[in-house]
Amino acid sequence: MKHKSFAIGVDIGGTNIRMSLMSRKHEVLYKLKEPIGKDPLLTLHKLLDSLFNECPDDIIAIGIAVAGIIDRESGVVVKSPNISALNGVNLVKEVSERHKTPVLIENDANAAAYGEKISGAGRDYKSFVMITLGTGIGGGIVIENELLPVAAEIGHITINHGGNKCGCGNTGCLEAHASASAIVEYAISHIKDGADTILKNLYNGNYFKVTAEDIYKSALEGDSLARDALRDAGRNLGLGLANVINVFSPEAIILMGGLTGSWNIYVEQAIKEASRRSLKELFERTKIIPSYLGDDAGIIGSAAVALKRFSPT
Amino acid sequence: MKHKSFAIGVDIGGTNIRMSLMSRKHEVLYKLKEPIGKDPLLTLHKLLDSLFNECPDDIIAIGIAVAGIIDRESGVVVKSPNISALNGVNLVKEVSERHKTPVLIENDANAAAYGEKISGAGRDYKSFVMITLGTGIGGGIVIENELLPVAAEIGHITINHGGNKCGCGNTGCLEAHASASAIVEYAISHIKDGADTILKNLYNGNYFKVTAEDIYKSALEGDSLARDALRDAGRNLGLGLANVINVFSPEAIILMGGLTGSWNIYVEQAIKEASRRSLKELFERTKIIPSYLGDDAGIIGSAAVALKRFSPT
Repeated sequence: MKHKSFAIGVDIGGTNIRMSLMSRKHEVLYKLKEPIGKDPLLTLHKLLDSLFNECPDDIIAIGIAVAGIIDRESGVVVKSPNISALNGVNLVKEVSERHKTPVLIENDANAAAYGEKISGAGRDYKSFVMITLGTGIGGGIVIENELLPVAAEIGHITINHGGNKCGCGNTGCLEAHASASAIVEYAISHIKDGADTILKNLYNGNYFKVTAEDIYKSALEGDSLARDALRDAGRNLGLGLANVINVFSPEAIILMGGLTGSWNIYVEQAIKEASRRSLKELFERTKIIPSYLGDDAGIIGSAAVALKRFSPT
Repeated sequence: MKHKSFAIGVDIGGTNIRMSLMSRKHEVLYKLKEPIGKDPLLTLHKLLDSLFNECPDDIIAIGIAVAGIIDRESGVVVKSPNISALNGVNLVKEVSERHKTPVLIENDANAAAYGEKISGAGRDYKSFVMITLGTGIGGGIVIENELLPVAAEIGHITINHGGNKCGCGNTGCLEAHASASAIVEYAISHIKDGADTILKNLYNGNYFKVTAEDIYKSALEGDSLARDALRDAGRNLGLGLANVINVFSPEAIILMGGLTGSWNIYVEQAIKEASRRSLKELFERTKIIPSYLGDDAGIIGSAAVALKRFSPT
């Protein structure tokens, strides 16, 4: 029997479906990306068909990373907040039946953390926590070189009792206080209250269009509201980092996503706050570093998880 | 060569050193307990000597559980808040050299969690988080039947931004808002403010001697301040439970320690709060149950961890 050679990694999140073709040695041979479109399953099958056509008898397994809560054992997407068409869909069954290949699903941030472990910023660490910082906040946890099969919804840790309303229904979640959306909301609410800021002049005065990136640029230009917005969110992120340090005593925390672009204000403030709040002995041994793989982490991690499960060496 | 048969489990915490002698089949043959005394190491060696005298050539390994932050690899007690005489001591070296037997150390709440996994409330669960609720709050995490080698300082998750001062130096820790000490402080501060309560009459009016147990008894007698103190702490514990559920998506949370005695007020309130704050899909699959082993969990867990490491079956 011929020895199969490749795994496919899939990342369904944001507005795109991304895929990788990965060798047993974790070399990425091929990548592709396409908008999810109206029917995520249709797009997924189409892209998989194209990869199977390239190497019909050579696919060991498929790993699919999805944003949201997944049930690893049944293969069902329990709840994907952004891609609701997938809610309740048994992706493992759907895909494995069509392509006659073993399939697993994983949460997207978890898969990304494992990607960083395999060939990114986590390579040299046995234990680390990865946190994704964008419009939402997610996480993935690697302990003793293994990806923890848990929800890792680090964005939905309550850090502030009676704080901001979060999209999940709770109040005071890390995500509601430290994400890009939280930064934008902070700025807009202060503009409404009459704050003096160059952000008011963007978009012909339609300041509700302001993005976290605009705020970072304005902060670099010395705008004090913009700096305050980033620092406030940074302090809140610091609480999240402190919680992660006290619970996981990791060797490293890897930060990923758009907001890491404002490292020198937002992340630096977070590190300062974490140093004040976490147990000193644990803080001192935790490195806080940026992601290496960025957007590729999910497709690398999902393929690697599938290889590990279905073709352990 | 004779096949050795037993492990010793040690739990150094509170005011006592406790020990167990455990067979490979996890049967506890013998238990002992003695006050730590002024010199913890001396007491430890004396108790170990007595066990070694009983079965001189039959001890496979010793597992020692200590309250505080430990370094599993070096064997050093990094920081034990309650037994400061052990800070900086390499317990593994001290004990293994004297008794010519392999030794490991573990955090006490972690060891207790593994005890519950081996022969307690966690037997039927692959993944659970144990939380100890006393004057302090600790935790231990079991994922896929394995004890996670992390700090698991769940009591030092910040749940309330600008909240109460905690013994660790931070403000707003779960421990500072939901422990027995927090309950007592809540009651005392309200008595000082003139609250009408039967607690005032205890201890001939020396109300600063009031304990969490007094408060629970008074609550059962209908005292409203006592009930408020327990409910407030319960709500805060609920935030901790919600955080644990959202991060670990466990099958169960096991609650241990003195405060579980006031389950019907304090824990019930916590469960209600957790149901409001955690992700619904995760909350629904999490059972919240009491510990089975109580004080024995640490000596069972520490012996079992040592057996697993040094005599894997």
